[in-house]
Amino acid sequence: MTARAPAAPTLVETVTQAITQRIASRKLVPGARLPSVRSFAEAMGVSKSTVVEAYDRLGAEGAIVARRGSGFYVAGKTRPLCLKAVGPELDRAVDPLWITRQSMQSGPDLLKPGSGWLPSSWMPDDAIRRGLRHLSREGTRSLVCYDQPLGFAPLRGQIARRMEEKGVVAQADQILLIDSATQAVDLLCRFLLSPGDTVVLDDPCYFNYHALLRAHRVNVVGVPFTPTGPDLAALEAAFAAQRPRFYLANSALHNPTGATLAPATVHRVLRLAEAHDTLIIEDDIFGDLESEPAPRLAGFDGLQRVIQVGSFSKTLSASVRCGFLAVRPDWIEPLVDLKLAMSLGNGHFAATLMHRLITDGTYRRHLAEIREKLARDRGLAARRLEACGLTLWTEPRGGLFLWARLPDGLDSAEIARRALAQGVVLAPGAAFSTSGAGTPYLRFNVAHCADPRIFSVLERAMQGGPA
Amino acid sequence: MTARAPAAPTLVETVTQAITQRIASRKLVPGARLPSVRSFAEAMGVSKSTVVEAYDRLGAEGAIVARRGSGFYVAGKTRPLCLKAVGPELDRAVDPLWITRQSMQSGPDLLKPGSGWLPSSWMPDDAIRRGLRHLSREGTRSLVCYDQPLGFAPLRGQIARRMEEKGVVAQADQILLIDSATQAVDLLCRFLLSPGDTVVLDDPCYFNYHALLRAHRVNVVGVPFTPTGPDLAALEAAFAAQRPRFYLANSALHNPTGATLAPATVHRVLRLAEAHDTLIIEDDIFGDLESEPAPRLAGFDGLQRVIQVGSFSKTLSASVRCGFLAVRPDWIEPLVDLKLAMSLGNGHFAATLMHRLITDGTYRRHLAEIREKLARDRGLAARRLEACGLTLWTEPRGGLFLWARLPDGLDSAEIARRALAQGVVLAPGAAFSTSGAGTPYLRFNVAHCADPRIFSVLERAMQGGPA
Repeated sequence: MTARAPAAPTLVETVTQAITQRIASRKLVPGARLPSVRSFAEAMGVSKSTVVEAYDRLGAEGAIVARRGSGFYVAGKTRPLCLKAVGPELDRAVDPLWITRQSMQSGPDLLKPGSGWLPSSWMPDDAIRRGLRHLSREGTRSLVCYDQPLGFAPLRGQIARRMEEKGVVAQADQILLIDSATQAVDLLCRFLLSPGDTVVLDDPCYFNYHALLRAHRVNVVGVPFTPTGPDLAALEAAFAAQRPRFYLANSALHNPTGATLAPATVHRVLRLAEAHDTLIIEDDIFGDLESEPAPRLAGFDGLQRVIQVGSFSKTLSASVRCGFLAVRPDWIEPLVDLKLAMSLGNGHFAATLMHRLITDGTYRRHLAEIREKLARDRGLAARRLEACGLTLWTEPRGGLFLWARLPDGLDSAEIARRALAQGVVLAPGAAFSTSGAGTPYLRFNVAHCADPRIFSVLERAMQGGPA
Repeated sequence: MTARAPAAPTLVETVTQAITQRIASRKLVPGARLPSVRSFAEAMGVSKSTVVEAYDRLGAEGAIVARRGSGFYVAGKTRPLCLKAVGPELDRAVDPLWITRQSMQSGPDLLKPGSGWLPSSWMPDDAIRRGLRHLSREGTRSLVCYDQPLGFAPLRGQIARRMEEKGVVAQADQILLIDSATQAVDLLCRFLLSPGDTVVLDDPCYFNYHALLRAHRVNVVGVPFTPTGPDLAALEAAFAAQRPRFYLANSALHNPTGATLAPATVHRVLRLAEAHDTLIIEDDIFGDLESEPAPRLAGFDGLQRVIQVGSFSKTLSASVRCGFLAVRPDWIEPLVDLKLAMSLGNGHFAATLMHRLITDGTYRRHLAEIREKLARDRGLAARRLEACGLTLWTEPRGGLFLWARLPDGLDSAEIARRALAQGVVLAPGAAFSTSGAGTPYLRFNVAHCADPRIFSVLERAMQGGPA
């Protein structure tokens, strides 16, 4: 081999790489048509002959193929979809999928203030044990049979009653059981989206939304989130310019910020959605942790343009899985068909157990208890974070999360990396915000902040140590 | 209004309708590029000017839009995905989604020889009751926590051991838990397919495959199924001409025919898949009902090109849902990411209960018992069907199903319609075969054939009555 000095890439190489990257990240899938030479030359700011040469080179490599009279197409077979390979390669400390995995691993030595759920010691395990013994004496049907197509009717009735307490009026037959809120959002994506559609998200938002929407091959537009809800001017601009299919909102006890939409914001978001004919999926997964329900998008709207999604995974059990969606009546039938095609239906046993825990009073008592504990722990965690030099973005009215800003000059990903080396799993802002707006922030789950080691590790990480 | 005599459609109208239908059936989705005028004219066998006029007309109606220099595109926003609206509108009696729904409804008055699963009285409810009481005394983790990312490790170990008994060698960390086999196939579709890809199915095959693949917007090619497996010449032709991404096979106790692949067929299917670089998903959902395991595609192949899928829904409980897939080691990590993005993981409680039912001996005893009962009922049902004038397509070596041909001249959809009016849910062949090859057949679930009323209703339906 001869040794050669590395040279700066030529224009042709730069263009070639840009296309190769789009193919690798599946922005261009096999069989997709490449942009015309002229439009790509304009977009890249290069001459047409440069693009022609790049296309020729990729053609010679077999990466693209020319079809007479109709342009260039991506060659070859589809490769498996790797969420990790899409977008920039992430450091594990800020890789949301990896943070989720860490939080799910059983390692008792890890402290997890970055977790998205309550500690198992907070969950109503005694009531679940009683519920299991109760169901072990009930009819065979709930133990071995498929659920009804919409899901266990008595539970749907209870969910409708609970939604009404939050101002959302739904009939039981507008409610569909799905095994988790994530699966419900996924089902709705299947129902509503085609590849290439656009979806609006809050910036920052729950990190799994990005992964889920990537799997649906749609474009995502982030709208800055404020302590009273989405920035309305930016939301209007996104609705007007991008014609999104829906806005995926998290209006009560927003993840990661803990903020809740102000009533006037609820009204204005709905007005904008109407003006631009955009749907809204309202993920109400943390809604039951509110003491006094704030207005919901689904409530003001009457489930016309808004679809609401929820589950019991965060409040009763993430092991016995049960979620649901509420939607306008005429969409129930096609959604049931799609649900059966994707899964053959929800878990019947989980639905009967959740129904039992609601009707025997467990759920109401348990919610009262965890709301109180969360209020206490939120105060404690806030004081400790402030003592470490962090600033709260807002004072949440309930829920698990505090969104706290590091002092200027500190990078949350670097802090998370150092803390992880000391056995503390943090949730750095970059995982929740692809725009970089979240970079100075960390999300803290107050229910996991009791151990003072968390704050000593955090302080050391902020001081640059340990080596 | 003026009255006009109906005229035969002009060529332009015919072309216009062809495009409108493709848009309605989502073969062309909003934003998709229409074929070039020349290629479409060739495909339709009309002149280019006819296509130009049709495109102009559709443009004037707003159905498509011209983009300068780059052709015509489907206009408008995506409409919700309705599986029903895709393909020909089906009579309810042959609508597979509707048959599934009927089988899931609780109506005790309906007789369901068309059902795809065992009666609840056959399921091991006493063992499940004991299992629930046992788990009610176990640690909190299995009751309230998310499962590990791959799923409960002890169950994955047991599944690996059970697969090995069927000649499929897999390590526990090649196995991923998913809540059902349907969800496992769905996850694999996400992982492997892009819209417009092609998948090969058996003709006939399990009807839900068609619905599921439709939701993934892929093309489906059916290959005739014979009593020893797929027709190999047709399979080779499909592999060569269509370059499918995978063949979705059901190699043991095939649904709906009950046939099992001959060992030589297993070998040859693998050779063909290798020669044409096609993957295989082997759905082994009924495999545990075999007394003597036949060779599996995944076993001969060593899980290189074959992915195997299974579940406990058909044998232990469809209410406490637990399925799995086994795949080559390097695909586990991206599949875990995708699984978490879609669902936040499988049900931990279901996995611990299934593990308990395997390790306490319930599963082995229960399988022995239902295999014996199925053998008895298969013989009984076969004799009764033959007495009614139907002919068995093959003698299955195990499982739930008999695929039986009606006497010439009788249409299974019409028979199913008449039987339904008498409270008997049949599974007519057209639901399993889009080619029409299945039309003279009905699928019978022998475990649901004990009630003699089924055969008297069938006979009356075959005689043309009741009015």
